Amino acid sequence: AQGPRNMVDYGRFLALLASALLAGFVSVILSLVWVFHYREGLSWDGGPAEFNWHPVLVITGFVFIQGIAIIVYRLPWTWKCSKLLMKFIHAGLNTIAMILAIVSMVAVFEYHNAKNIPNMYSLHSWIGLAAVIFYSLQLFLGFAVFLLPFAPVYLRAVLMPIHVYSGLTIFATVIATALMGITEKLIFSLRNPAYSASPPEATLVNCLGLLLVVFGSLILWMASRPHWKRPLEEHTKVLRPIGETHEGTEVESTMTNSSNADKSDLRINTEAARKQNLKFDEAGQRSTM
Amino acid sequence: AQGPRNMVDYGRFLALLASALLAGFVSVILSLVWVFHYREGLSWDGGPAEFNWHPVLVITGFVFIQGIAIIVYRLPWTWKCSKLLMKFIHAGLNTIAMILAIVSMVAVFEYHNAKNIPNMYSLHSWIGLAAVIFYSLQLFLGFAVFLLPFAPVYLRAVLMPIHVYSGLTIFATVIATALMGITEKLIFSLRNPAYSASPPEATLVNCLGLLLVVFGSLILWMASRPHWKRPLEEHTKVLRPIGETHEGTEVESTMTNSSNADKSDLRINTEAARKQNLKFDEAGQRSTM
Repeated sequence: AQGPRNMVDYGRFLALLASALLAGFVSVILSLVWVFHYREGLSWDGGPAEFNWHPVLVITGFVFIQGIAIIVYRLPWTWKCSKLLMKFIHAGLNTIAMILAIVSMVAVFEYHNAKNIPNMYSLHSWIGLAAVIFYSLQLFLGFAVFLLPFAPVYLRAVLMPIHVYSGLTIFATVIATALMGITEKLIFSLRNPAYSASPPEATLVNCLGLLLVVFGSLILWMASRPHWKRPLEEHTKVLRPIGETHEGTEVESTMTNSSNADKSDLRINTEAARKQNLKFDEAGQRSTM
Repeated sequence: AQGPRNMVDYGRFLALLASALLAGFVSVILSLVWVFHYREGLSWDGGPAEFNWHPVLVITGFVFIQGIAIIVYRLPWTWKCSKLLMKFIHAGLNTIAMILAIVSMVAVFEYHNAKNIPNMYSLHSWIGLAAVIFYSLQLFLGFAVFLLPFAPVYLRAVLMPIHVYSGLTIFATVIATALMGITEKLIFSLRNPAYSASPPEATLVNCLGLLLVVFGSLILWMASRPHWKRPLEEHTKVLRPIGETHEGTEVESTMTNSSNADKSDLRINTEAARKQNLKFDEAGQRSTM
């Protein structure tokens, strides 16, 4: 009973998870209040109500669902599920997020085109498009390397820390882009009273922006605690000599994932096992970023 | 000769460092080109030229200098310097960044007040002020706990992972806030041609925004590679039983930092030393986030 398996730590994890879910859920609600109470609602007609899909789908998919996808391996009650199943859930949630992000972009392009507003002129659009492209690339590479059974363990080990880093960096960039989008939209749409007069809509949407930062910070904290990682599968670990590179490694193969009986933590109780364990660079294997 | 000490890895670190320095330096130059070539230059007169100190000082201090402060422990040629000296450099750079950030805020408030523009209405101002407050708190707590000699090792160990996480999160938030500020300023100041007509100023400042994201991404990559961490001081390490919490720990005391002769890496060559090393939870000690 170590790390995530003791009760105090488990309680702390649950409290953070509940906070993150609450922040994400309230963000989605606030985006709906914004477009339905203060704006033109939602429809697909080339008008402002089509644009409104953009913030709602970005916050629902590209922020909230992506955030959940990032921490799905951390949920202790999934540790008895096979790693392969969890990979499918991780990839599936990210695929849903990507589809919603793309639909949200289509809504803006159609709205711009219908109203003869230029596309892709703002910093928000530049970084947002870059984020969608990198996110798609990340999903494609993740699928090819970590889900399909063809990539050698060596390649997985080299790419895993890059996958983790780029995933978290893209997630943070998406939130930054959402904050830019909120800024743009409030400046453009609030006239008489203007944004600078702080009408209720401005205050509500500013709070939405703050909540996105809180959600992102909670997800990044949970994702980067090494002791909340899913335990390694004992039978699939790779022996590596001391002194090798200390990058984090993904050494579990989707192909050898049939038995999930023994998920006991790597840290060992017997002297023999301790000596054996010297062959692992666990610091590297378990480090997240 | 492991990790950061082998030549290939050292070359990779230097290439990333050079890229980060270039991105940060060019960002500062672009901010100066922006305010001198396209805007009213710099002065302290309550007019637009006073406002212009805001982007220049934020990018120079709150982004570039803060970024350097974050990775200063990673520079291999500083590993022969005492940890205490490096802490002073880390704290000093962050203090400079904080002062520049505060001066940059004063410039905006004075400009707003002179022109009767409301303060603190935008999401940019909310998150920016929160970032400055958290940054000051981080600096104060870091000084009290890690630089002054009074905090017990236990407290340092508990607070170090929080210090690292909040430092990186504040840094990312500062960059996100800068992107919002760029968005605001381009919308407000570009009229005829507007931002949406993509005049040269818009393109230049969009590129500046992209460069800030690149700089931030490089700093976060360098800061989060466990094998690029400064080696632990051997004689000041704390023995901890296996199975304790796996949080990263700051176990080096500023008080016991006199001898820096033996900086050899923790990973061990003799069997006796290996057994000894089992008492450390190195995964925790060396994990960055």
